[in-house]
Amino acid sequence: MSAEKTIAVYGLGSMGYGMAQSLLRAGHRVYGNDVVAAPVERLAAEGGLVGDVAEFGPALDIAVIVVLNAAQTETVLFGDGGLVRHMAPGACVMACATVAPDFARAMASRCAEREVLYLDAPISGGAVKAAAGQLSVMASGSPAAFTAARPALDAMAETVFELGDAPGAGSAMKAVNQLLAGVHIAAMAEAVTFGMTQGIEAAETVEVIAKCAGTSWMFENRGPHIVAGDYTPRSAVDIWLKDLGIVLDIARGSKFSAPLTAAALQQFAAASGSGLGGEDDAAVAKVYARNANLRLPGAE
Amino acid sequence: MSAEKTIAVYGLGSMGYGMAQSLLRAGHRVYGNDVVAAPVERLAAEGGLVGDVAEFGPALDIAVIVVLNAAQTETVLFGDGGLVRHMAPGACVMACATVAPDFARAMASRCAEREVLYLDAPISGGAVKAAAGQLSVMASGSPAAFTAARPALDAMAETVFELGDAPGAGSAMKAVNQLLAGVHIAAMAEAVTFGMTQGIEAAETVEVIAKCAGTSWMFENRGPHIVAGDYTPRSAVDIWLKDLGIVLDIARGSKFSAPLTAAALQQFAAASGSGLGGEDDAAVAKVYARNANLRLPGAE
Repeated sequence: MSAEKTIAVYGLGSMGYGMAQSLLRAGHRVYGNDVVAAPVERLAAEGGLVGDVAEFGPALDIAVIVVLNAAQTETVLFGDGGLVRHMAPGACVMACATVAPDFARAMASRCAEREVLYLDAPISGGAVKAAAGQLSVMASGSPAAFTAARPALDAMAETVFELGDAPGAGSAMKAVNQLLAGVHIAAMAEAVTFGMTQGIEAAETVEVIAKCAGTSWMFENRGPHIVAGDYTPRSAVDIWLKDLGIVLDIARGSKFSAPLTAAALQQFAAASGSGLGGEDDAAVAKVYARNANLRLPGAE
Repeated sequence: MSAEKTIAVYGLGSMGYGMAQSLLRAGHRVYGNDVVAAPVERLAAEGGLVGDVAEFGPALDIAVIVVLNAAQTETVLFGDGGLVRHMAPGACVMACATVAPDFARAMASRCAEREVLYLDAPISGGAVKAAAGQLSVMASGSPAAFTAARPALDAMAETVFELGDAPGAGSAMKAVNQLLAGVHIAAMAEAVTFGMTQGIEAAETVEVIAKCAGTSWMFENRGPHIVAGDYTPRSAVDIWLKDLGIVLDIARGSKFSAPLTAAALQQFAAASGSGLGGEDDAAVAKVYARNANLRLPGAE
């Protein structure tokens, strides 16, 4: 058993909150931080700690940053009231947002100036797995960073992909995964609605294709949302507008032509632009249905 | 055990030849037919029969049509020396090529004029499964057509999806599957090469993503071809030029916007246009690699 550590979690959205719960369950001292007060107070009621970074910062072993994007990550680490200047040498930042590899390398360098370790550690798995301590983490960083972050990884992750000692590799692999996942969700929506134009019901496509070479993890996971007409957001349309945008930013920086990613992003943009940004990402099918005058299951 | 039937197989390519072998193994009398003599003779050496359609046609219980496309299917059925006019009432055509649902319905109607049954029965699974009698068949047609075709289905297929009594539904589901499979192959190539621009080796992407939400059946099946640098065609680039073309023809006929399919088709077109049409479909990655000045595994 690892000894009890002092850990701060920044960003108590659905992922971060579950991760904080997993850290508490493993016996760690967990400071919850968010721009919104409610989840901080809720976590406190479950045993979380509340404090000022100037006070708890020097005692931190690990800071888990699970905010929305690169800009928020930079603000948490180096903005006004920034975290890193309060951390002791040898403490570790574990950065979990989906960001560009170059950004991860820049953050790691700035942390190194203060002898703070940095683990480039994007996560995958969703809110349920976060709360169960069963996330997948795509991690890269120095051996010292891995060692320092290990107690948090042990508490939060079922699978840790160790992708080498250079920050940036973790973020790169996360971008590869998001490229595929986003394309596959849009392809699922395209295929299910295409089938409907030919008289095949959504339920039949989802059932048959799951057993055929056309299947994907996302097809099997998101297809049933369309069949059920249930767009309660497990992962929202706007996540893909953001993440496929990051993928295309990285691609453009490397002069890489990514036509499928670009096409998928346009479909999520059309979904978000027509008011579906907060719905489950399977709602990208509504764009296809609208364009083809189809009625999806559950629609009026 | 079903009684021995008299069956003709039209089209002894890698799929048709394996299907004919499976039919022979099940004890049926099998007439092999192809525009090329060599596979007909090879099948004869394994027990296949050779004859003129005017002679064996009236004795046929089932004719399995496994040629390349709709045009070849129509020629076999209704062209000069066409098969259907020689078949007896109650005999069954089992049409396996990937075609548009409207085409399947038209062929079924023309067969019905001569009281010949028609099973719309596209296949999936590849040459190895064809020879092993383990294909998947997406079938629709009248109960009488299913009953008549059953001995052939039993000999060739591991899974038969029964998609209703209307010809066209089988072809529609096949098109849905091909849409997804083609998009997923191109997405795999896009993701693996995108990762390479960020310093991730192809082998690492293929290993890690297979365990993540970004995976697909095609990713796991075709990704290793890139890692091995092996483009021996199991399924060729040109198959996707054809099949995604069929999907987009159907889509256009229904005024259905299919942007991911269109983008994927362009990548296969670029692969075929640059001389890779006969290579394994994973060679679509060579288009991405060329455009990004990357060297794929095994490349000089």
